Amino acid sequence: MSAELSEVAKGVAQAHIAFVKEVAARDPQHFALANCLRGLAIDAVEAANSGHPGAPMGMADAATVLLQNHLKFDASDPDWADRDRVILSNGHASALLYAMLHVTGYADMTLEEVKNFRQLGAKTAGHPEFGHAKGIETTTGPLGQGLAAAVGMALAEKALAAEFGGDLVDHHTYVFLGDGCLQEGIGQEAISLAGHLGLGKLIVLYDDNAITIDGPTSVSFSDDIPARLAACSWHVQSCDGHDAGALDAAIAAAKAETGKPSLVAMKTVIGFGSPAKHGTAGVHGAPLGTEECAVVKDLLGLSQTPFELDDAALKTWRAIGAQGGDARAAWEARLAAAPAALRCEFTRRMAHDLPEGYGAAVAKARAALFATPAKVATRKASQMALAALAPALPEMIGGSADLTGSNLTRVPAVDSQFTRDTAGRYIGYGVREFAMGAAMNGMMNHGGLMPYGGTFMVFSDYVRNAIRLSALMEVGTIYVMTHDSIGLGEDGPTHQPVEHLAALRAMPNLYVMRPADAVETLECWDIAARARKTPSLMALSRQGVPQLREAETGENLSERGAYVIRQFGEGRDVTLLATGTEVALAVEAAHALSEQGLSVAVVSMPCWELFEAQEAAYRAQVLGVAPRLAVEAAGKFGWTRYVASEADVIGMDSFGASGPIEALYAHFGLTKEAIVARAQALAAAARVA
Amino acid sequence: MSAELSEVAKGVAQAHIAFVKEVAARDPQHFALANCLRGLAIDAVEAANSGHPGAPMGMADAATVLLQNHLKFDASDPDWADRDRVILSNGHASALLYAMLHVTGYADMTLEEVKNFRQLGAKTAGHPEFGHAKGIETTTGPLGQGLAAAVGMALAEKALAAEFGGDLVDHHTYVFLGDGCLQEGIGQEAISLAGHLGLGKLIVLYDDNAITIDGPTSVSFSDDIPARLAACSWHVQSCDGHDAGALDAAIAAAKAETGKPSLVAMKTVIGFGSPAKHGTAGVHGAPLGTEECAVVKDLLGLSQTPFELDDAALKTWRAIGAQGGDARAAWEARLAAAPAALRCEFTRRMAHDLPEGYGAAVAKARAALFATPAKVATRKASQMALAALAPALPEMIGGSADLTGSNLTRVPAVDSQFTRDTAGRYIGYGVREFAMGAAMNGMMNHGGLMPYGGTFMVFSDYVRNAIRLSALMEVGTIYVMTHDSIGLGEDGPTHQPVEHLAALRAMPNLYVMRPADAVETLECWDIAARARKTPSLMALSRQGVPQLREAETGENLSERGAYVIRQFGEGRDVTLLATGTEVALAVEAAHALSEQGLSVAVVSMPCWELFEAQEAAYRAQVLGVAPRLAVEAAGKFGWTRYVASEADVIGMDSFGASGPIEALYAHFGLTKEAIVARAQALAAAARVA
Repeated sequence: MSAELSEVAKGVAQAHIAFVKEVAARDPQHFALANCLRGLAIDAVEAANSGHPGAPMGMADAATVLLQNHLKFDASDPDWADRDRVILSNGHASALLYAMLHVTGYADMTLEEVKNFRQLGAKTAGHPEFGHAKGIETTTGPLGQGLAAAVGMALAEKALAAEFGGDLVDHHTYVFLGDGCLQEGIGQEAISLAGHLGLGKLIVLYDDNAITIDGPTSVSFSDDIPARLAACSWHVQSCDGHDAGALDAAIAAAKAETGKPSLVAMKTVIGFGSPAKHGTAGVHGAPLGTEECAVVKDLLGLSQTPFELDDAALKTWRAIGAQGGDARAAWEARLAAAPAALRCEFTRRMAHDLPEGYGAAVAKARAALFATPAKVATRKASQMALAALAPALPEMIGGSADLTGSNLTRVPAVDSQFTRDTAGRYIGYGVREFAMGAAMNGMMNHGGLMPYGGTFMVFSDYVRNAIRLSALMEVGTIYVMTHDSIGLGEDGPTHQPVEHLAALRAMPNLYVMRPADAVETLECWDIAARARKTPSLMALSRQGVPQLREAETGENLSERGAYVIRQFGEGRDVTLLATGTEVALAVEAAHALSEQGLSVAVVSMPCWELFEAQEAAYRAQVLGVAPRLAVEAAGKFGWTRYVASEADVIGMDSFGASGPIEALYAHFGLTKEAIVARAQALAAAARVA
Repeated sequence: MSAELSEVAKGVAQAHIAFVKEVAARDPQHFALANCLRGLAIDAVEAANSGHPGAPMGMADAATVLLQNHLKFDASDPDWADRDRVILSNGHASALLYAMLHVTGYADMTLEEVKNFRQLGAKTAGHPEFGHAKGIETTTGPLGQGLAAAVGMALAEKALAAEFGGDLVDHHTYVFLGDGCLQEGIGQEAISLAGHLGLGKLIVLYDDNAITIDGPTSVSFSDDIPARLAACSWHVQSCDGHDAGALDAAIAAAKAETGKPSLVAMKTVIGFGSPAKHGTAGVHGAPLGTEECAVVKDLLGLSQTPFELDDAALKTWRAIGAQGGDARAAWEARLAAAPAALRCEFTRRMAHDLPEGYGAAVAKARAALFATPAKVATRKASQMALAALAPALPEMIGGSADLTGSNLTRVPAVDSQFTRDTAGRYIGYGVREFAMGAAMNGMMNHGGLMPYGGTFMVFSDYVRNAIRLSALMEVGTIYVMTHDSIGLGEDGPTHQPVEHLAALRAMPNLYVMRPADAVETLECWDIAARARKTPSLMALSRQGVPQLREAETGENLSERGAYVIRQFGEGRDVTLLATGTEVALAVEAAHALSEQGLSVAVVSMPCWELFEAQEAAYRAQVLGVAPRLAVEAAGKFGWTRYVASEADVIGMDSFGASGPIEALYAHFGLTKEAIVARAQALAAAARVA
């Protein structure tokens, strides 16, 4: 460094030291509390030699004010249903959250856990992981999704408050976020949706530190954020993010505005406390280093011993962690005093348990289908299933990304629009697929609801990372994906899924379900409703299919993942594997083959994931030892799990095309004739061998 | 319908008829021209009995004003490099675009094609498909992506104008879009980026018709769009979308503002001309029907004979299609008069041809690696390859979604930031992965550039549908995806790709390339640079790998997709298949196996797609007949294409975890020991059999 530059750097460092001292002098007690959070975050990152110290150091003042003066919580009961939620949408600042949980006394978050930051098996993963520790309300890290999940939580709060009353449900959702969440498209989708629905109990604390990974935000970002959010019907304020009084007033004003979501744009200094590194991208994602760490601790009045906190400050923090105890006790008393039915229902709902009448509703819907078989598109069958189940499941909250009439996601029981004035059971998500998925995840995280939402299956691409978070968090969000193949016809290749089934089947812990007829569709809905730890994705057809299941066996066969739906002749010369709309085609082909003297089993495979979970003997019996041929109006990738090679798949090798459905199936070779020809060849080859 | 309702409907219809007559009286000639577009769109949808008439009817006035008074184009030369671009981001309005192209005389767009709207094999697909006909500048339909592609085109224009001068490059990019594109997150990402970069030649015509599929936009959307865009540094105007004079003035003002992108919010009536259906969701995506069609044509003064246009109006349209001829000729003259080197370079660039010096640059970089083997992460090897190739490829334009230091996408040749003031060769896309992908596609559509952009591989989810459009459009966009496995370590499961390789391999026409070392990385970059019709996705490691390729064979072996990289012993007892960082692990294991007396071949498979394109004999030789075991730090899905079952894959069965890399590889069983044990078992079983 040249002498001149060095002088500049020295000046910058001195100015920051003066600023820190000013903050300290303004409110010494606040300064000491905030520095506990900074100290733990700094030490955790140093110990791991990996992580993001800058954002925790910058946001510690806001976190302190929030916890001390506003947040409704009780560290001794982190599951308290009516607690305020805190979402760290800029999940890379995870060390701040762990520090918050530790100092306030969450039992899960021991000092040992904080010390094991980012180590295998610790609760303190690199980004906050839902389920690792109480107080982590959702998984964050993929930017923008925390904000969208928070929108879902605020929606859930509004819906449940309307249903159970403000005595039981009346809490805020707070979000910390940075520039990244506001640059991501999903962030804007969430902002637009929240503003439209007037979610007044959603309060966003924006860490406006003017730094991104690539340097100053001016490299890539110059939105006037308060103006942008005001244009989306948000209440907006700006304040100094290191001024406890200003922060307190801003949060109070945000709470006072009940008709609009609130943004508090906090001017912060990333790496606050570091004379050499504050305000630079260098402090975003790397440890401070031993030397600077010592300087920072000295400036902040922290012990040089790692993880050692000031006794008095920690005591104050523990008191903050307990100060919500009275409110919680009062809430418990209100719950206890509530009518028994209301109390039981509330408790059931928050536990994601199914209601008593649910099984009967399923049985009745099954009986109706067997009594009067339905030749319908599976999207229509889905609507029928929903119509039958939703009345028994008051937790169901539906919606669509502006494709209600196509997805057929609206049924009488949920036919009440969720608006800014009324918390209905149907949400118009608008053309915002990604926010829809993430918001549904937030509702699942919140508890009390069973969200499902629809779009065209090809746009599972747009929502894909929210589906991934459902699977990773183990929450049972339900994705209704219609128009599941070239069978959608004229809209053409941009709208025709081809690779999507494979791409989704590749994802761990996701039920990808492609039912063949109305009965399987009902069965898949039943699976989805019961699967509260696994998300479900329903791949549904635009075009009609016959009801193949004719006799009630009393079993949800789809739950096996795959099963023999038709047997022609005795034994097997060949086995046809198919899903969805192609099962009927396979049955037709099998019939033709049987007329030619072959014995054929047709296996419907609505859910590979469930099939893989069956016992080996069952799987072997279903798959058989005869040659197998797969039929699916989708890319062939992945089918080699069940057939010898992709030559044994009647499927797609390319993107689709625009045209009427019949022309497309013929053009892409998805025909009875093609199945018959290949099956004959396979059977003949097996006879020779 | 009750009598009262019927009276209301009648009143609405009468009011619309009066409005239409007012528009007609204001400018009869304009009215007649616009109605040619409406008539063709209506008839095309009726003939197909499928499609979207409402938006074309609403936007026809704006399209007419744009084509007649502003658009620089020459229908007789649709490839004119300096033409203005028109993007129909609301691609469902495709019939409008086809009508525009037909009436102005694009040779591709015959009346026969318009009549075959949405039929298999026609150029007139349900949504505009790039490559089907000249004048379709990009594929649209997946909402928001047309706008983002247009941002890429405007970026390309600015970059090329800076390089080749305003005499050769000086054109506008016009975008039609509706509410959907503005609700989609990617739309906002594109808006924010365009505003930040001050793309003054980008002009957006917003079809503000207050209707979405689910009904009035008030169901889900209440952003103040002009204010929102103004907050992102856009120039904004509002006008009556059926007033030709107002539209003309607004477009003129938009062109006059050269420092900011422009929005013209046009108040339009969806289904303009239909007394019964205008202004309703019913006219969005369904034919008008015979009866209403007749009423509309009567009101608009159109022939009742389908596809029959007024001679005089058509003649005027053809003249409009030719009016850019002089400007084009003048441009041709300027090109011809330009210095030969500049002219040749411009022509080469627009044709996506590689320069002469390119091969030598590759050879030199190869020689350097063989002279001094590099033990580096493949992301670092990628940076080395880029550093070597970019000087020979002035068309390369790089960038990252705010992860430059992690993706290592910046090298000296592109080390000039693209800002609002200067068109550099490196774009700070910000945390906007999806817009980055779509903008790169737009640059490819535009011509003259070779865009590449980086993010973490897990966020391929965020950009996935843009990757799909690259593949569908057959454009060679290059995606640099680093941190390609659990090998990224502490950031944890939200940041660790698991299912992504499979999900991407499932996509048609995409080179998913996971190089094993520095040589393969260079080879993959060479493949990507030459593949101008196929997008490439590079999966690159955070962690270091040894250089396995030691001797120059003079061949780009990666181009084979897979090849034997090591042979231990003679013949084969077992074959190990691996990609990327796991090839070195497989080599280690093979070495251990060979010490135990087994003959082992290690096959590196950097690109499955390329391997599948090889001759059968080559594939058979590489794969061999010995038992095969696959090794990849990713989900096992899809590997059954090459191995007997997923039991023969050393890979991942779940999401990852947060921890140091060594701990993770051990925890998930990706170890030399595991490979050796399974390989021994396979070889032993084969000996018995």
